[in-house]
Amino acid sequence: MYRTHDCGSLRLDDINQNVTLSGWVQKSRNKGFIVWVDLRDRYGITQLIFDEKRSPNNVFEIAQSIGREFVIQIKGLVIKRESKNPEISTGDIEVLVNELNILNESKTPPFTLEDNTDGGEELRMQYRYLDLRRKSVKEKLLFRSKVSMEIRKYLISAGFIDVETPYLIKSTPEGARDFVVPSRMNSGQFYALPQSPQTFKQLLMIGGLDKYFQIVKCFRDEDLRADRQPEFTQIDCEMAFVNQEDVINQFEGLTRHLIKKLKGVNIESFPRMSYEEAMKTYGNDKPDIRFGMLFGELNDLVKDKGFTIFDSEELIAGIAVPDAATYTRKEIDGLIDWVKHPQVGAKGLVWVKCNDDGSYKSSVDKFFSETQLATWAERTGAKIGDLILIISGEIKTTRAQLSALRMELAKRMGLRDPEVFAPLWITDFPLLNWDKANQRYHAIHHPFTAPKQDQLDLLKTDPGGVTANAYDLVLNGNEIGGGSIRIHDQKLQSQIFDLLGFTKEEAQAQFGFLMNAFKYGAPPHGGIAFGLDRLVSILGGDETIRDFIAFPKNNSGRDVMIDAPSKINDSQLKELKLKVGPQKKE
Amino acid sequence: MYRTHDCGSLRLDDINQNVTLSGWVQKSRNKGFIVWVDLRDRYGITQLIFDEKRSPNNVFEIAQSIGREFVIQIKGLVIKRESKNPEISTGDIEVLVNELNILNESKTPPFTLEDNTDGGEELRMQYRYLDLRRKSVKEKLLFRSKVSMEIRKYLISAGFIDVETPYLIKSTPEGARDFVVPSRMNSGQFYALPQSPQTFKQLLMIGGLDKYFQIVKCFRDEDLRADRQPEFTQIDCEMAFVNQEDVINQFEGLTRHLIKKLKGVNIESFPRMSYEEAMKTYGNDKPDIRFGMLFGELNDLVKDKGFTIFDSEELIAGIAVPDAATYTRKEIDGLIDWVKHPQVGAKGLVWVKCNDDGSYKSSVDKFFSETQLATWAERTGAKIGDLILIISGEIKTTRAQLSALRMELAKRMGLRDPEVFAPLWITDFPLLNWDKANQRYHAIHHPFTAPKQDQLDLLKTDPGGVTANAYDLVLNGNEIGGGSIRIHDQKLQSQIFDLLGFTKEEAQAQFGFLMNAFKYGAPPHGGIAFGLDRLVSILGGDETIRDFIAFPKNNSGRDVMIDAPSKINDSQLKELKLKVGPQKKE
Repeated sequence: MYRTHDCGSLRLDDINQNVTLSGWVQKSRNKGFIVWVDLRDRYGITQLIFDEKRSPNNVFEIAQSIGREFVIQIKGLVIKRESKNPEISTGDIEVLVNELNILNESKTPPFTLEDNTDGGEELRMQYRYLDLRRKSVKEKLLFRSKVSMEIRKYLISAGFIDVETPYLIKSTPEGARDFVVPSRMNSGQFYALPQSPQTFKQLLMIGGLDKYFQIVKCFRDEDLRADRQPEFTQIDCEMAFVNQEDVINQFEGLTRHLIKKLKGVNIESFPRMSYEEAMKTYGNDKPDIRFGMLFGELNDLVKDKGFTIFDSEELIAGIAVPDAATYTRKEIDGLIDWVKHPQVGAKGLVWVKCNDDGSYKSSVDKFFSETQLATWAERTGAKIGDLILIISGEIKTTRAQLSALRMELAKRMGLRDPEVFAPLWITDFPLLNWDKANQRYHAIHHPFTAPKQDQLDLLKTDPGGVTANAYDLVLNGNEIGGGSIRIHDQKLQSQIFDLLGFTKEEAQAQFGFLMNAFKYGAPPHGGIAFGLDRLVSILGGDETIRDFIAFPKNNSGRDVMIDAPSKINDSQLKELKLKVGPQKKE
Repeated sequence: MYRTHDCGSLRLDDINQNVTLSGWVQKSRNKGFIVWVDLRDRYGITQLIFDEKRSPNNVFEIAQSIGREFVIQIKGLVIKRESKNPEISTGDIEVLVNELNILNESKTPPFTLEDNTDGGEELRMQYRYLDLRRKSVKEKLLFRSKVSMEIRKYLISAGFIDVETPYLIKSTPEGARDFVVPSRMNSGQFYALPQSPQTFKQLLMIGGLDKYFQIVKCFRDEDLRADRQPEFTQIDCEMAFVNQEDVINQFEGLTRHLIKKLKGVNIESFPRMSYEEAMKTYGNDKPDIRFGMLFGELNDLVKDKGFTIFDSEELIAGIAVPDAATYTRKEIDGLIDWVKHPQVGAKGLVWVKCNDDGSYKSSVDKFFSETQLATWAERTGAKIGDLILIISGEIKTTRAQLSALRMELAKRMGLRDPEVFAPLWITDFPLLNWDKANQRYHAIHHPFTAPKQDQLDLLKTDPGGVTANAYDLVLNGNEIGGGSIRIHDQKLQSQIFDLLGFTKEEAQAQFGFLMNAFKYGAPPHGGIAFGLDRLVSILGGDETIRDFIAFPKNNSGRDVMIDAPSKINDSQLKELKLKVGPQKKE
């Protein structure tokens, strides 16, 4: 037996007990006649004492040679600690060692295994197994395990059943790019890894299973943006005989439960907002509503007043930054530089200070009177002491730029408090958008999303104007879940495939199994999927999702620890009947 | 709202309530003035009654046209049923319908959706979404969900943490064949899908996480045998600072809990048997110990007695078939034919009847006296009334053949009762076996399994004779779990790679990350993995694992429902820089 106790459990009550502990040497302090060692395991840290007088000679001798991260086993007597350490749970005691066994030695780690480490991201990822020993990293993984289990418990007790869907499925190029898996037994053919179990969960509903969930890995071969992973984890759910209201209520319940259980926070309400309103007032479809600075659209107030820059723009919109009228010229110039960065790409900012004395001072005083500026203040909700910042341009880009500015200001002003949780449903998404280049529609959500029931006629006359029966759950400015009521009528599904530019043959080849299933009594159904990585990271403190993944990949999709992907043997390629590389002449 | 109740919940207490139900038409009986419909959903069946006099005219009319598997919604009044049906939970009531809404029509299913269906395997798999509507299939998936959750609850409360390991990893050709995934972003390189998370769970132990579990999909590109799937689910577990006894105790606890909780059966004991003893007495390493018929080895009793066939054989072994002395000549010939089938491959059987009067009658009476036959009876444990069946040949094949015969007889005699659970630990497996063809050793378990601590010297002198620190858990003749204490010493691991024929460069390229990790304080660790598909099927009644998988693949690794694998687009191949097919000249 390697231990009688773990390193987090000994207390004053255990004094005078003989114990056996195993763990890693966090640090050791050698005072000549006494060596103290902090012994660490998953559960905590216990202080060991090796005493020249009280420990056996050979034990004391070896103790002087053990280094950081050595794995040792000790036997000893629990004694009262003279100078207590209130910061650790075992801080009242220490263990006077009388037997010492070095289980494994350790080279000096390439970075310090403390919460504040000196290791950079790349190095820590290469030695992820050492990084995991840091308390902050370990606790993130423990937290993730806890969140997963809470989700399962909630859904199981709500009558959901956990069904495993296959990982080796069929490639369907609609949507993101698939990872594919060559089949050796069916040469020239490929499986694909699922981007989500979408069609399978729909088939489970057609199969009568009614309430399904799965916490499942999904795969997308995308050019990676920061904080995106080629494999990610989804909480995938589907229900039969439901409308949008039923799904929303069910998963509002789950979200409320998680925030209460894991953070101790009661969520009073889950407001709802249409996609259109979100775009108009926050400039994006996942607004962070923990703070204000809603958009005011100024077109009618600013056009044809002699300021020609505004006259030609599609949208002029502003936000009121609270208590920022005191910003210096330099600070405002800093913001102007920030919005001009290529990542944001605005042409500049117009600003208006709402001074304490009720007067207004702006960068466009030549063109607008104080009376006019006062109407801008009213429109943006600016109060005395606020600073109005205005961006103009095409509708889409202006909204994106002003939204980026709003989020940046909130970050700088500390308004994005990770301990405050503000969920929000976004509803009434458009069903389709028009792709000019390819002269076809794209599904905004996916091709299985149902249009609103009362808009089926509009689908024939103005497909781009149709609203979807879709909904996203937003938490603190992040989309944590998205779902929809699905099409369950074969004719409607076929009509959508037509609009998306599928030929009948393509639709049949890729989704024939689903279209066929619709002919055998498909029930009305709908569902939702949550991004677990994101959800856990927000609940865990709004950091990057990578920290909450045991073995993440870098931005090139590489696992730098195991060095994957890598070349494979020629014999493997031969068995798969594959040739690799640029198409050379032979 | 599609329903106020599900189809399994209405009782006598609900009489006179107005309810809304939705579901599928299981069957309908039209008596001219009355139509009865069995309405089915996941939760049960409720009888609907459409009455010419009491239902509205249009409702009654439509009711006559609805066919099997139509999806309907009804509103109606719960009334007392005249002829009760005790076989269903709602059998005391029926619902008098006053509103009927056809939610979706259905073509006539290609097979009947009853427990005893007329659909063959291939057809049911092609329409798996209809097959799932059958009660017996649905209940297997519900059972699987329940088993998974029980496993999680047990392990979480025992302090294990659920960690997700990556699916896109590195190909390591040792062991079974990998499925590989071409990387677009790292052209010419491949990920592999995990055959198990073996190295990752070891790295988690090195990372200090101590008690890990995961219910995880694993992948093996093998030529499929019956009842093997290219993707399968593993309960994967690992612990640090443990020896074999610790792991065995922990997972004995899990197994005991599952059998108690899910089957109501208390397991008194988990006997243990060495690999050698299992092979000697049962002829295989996963013996079904629910019944006897242990092997008796007869070499010393039968050789050099004039029966030359036995004289030249490596092993002569027999089993005593209880109460089978009354078998007719025809029955015995049938058994002889059975063992001669190519799948078994024995040359024949020698038999001895232990007659009721104490006499013996055998197929080798010419060569052996009754006194001699009596010693065979003693050796095989045969009692009066038993039939001794004897096979001879090379040790390995004889054991396999006699074991197959033993299992076949047990099946025929009804000794493999699916409600009896007999677990067994097999220990002391050999570490390596010698591959004559390739002049190298193979790891019996995998290359990370530790030899017994006291046999490290033997590793230098007689590697083939070394026993591994490995253990399998067998349940009712199936290996449900297997594990080992792992190597945590870099030098020992390197020595094993040498024995397995790895060059230093190959070992470094494939497992360098693990060898490197061992240098930074790897703790002693070990674990186990259970096959969930198999475990669930045994707990669920010992049927084929395919029945307990929502969307299984066939023996060619195909999903016949979605028709995967399939060809992919040329543009996909081009992006991956891959060429497919026989190596043509260009």
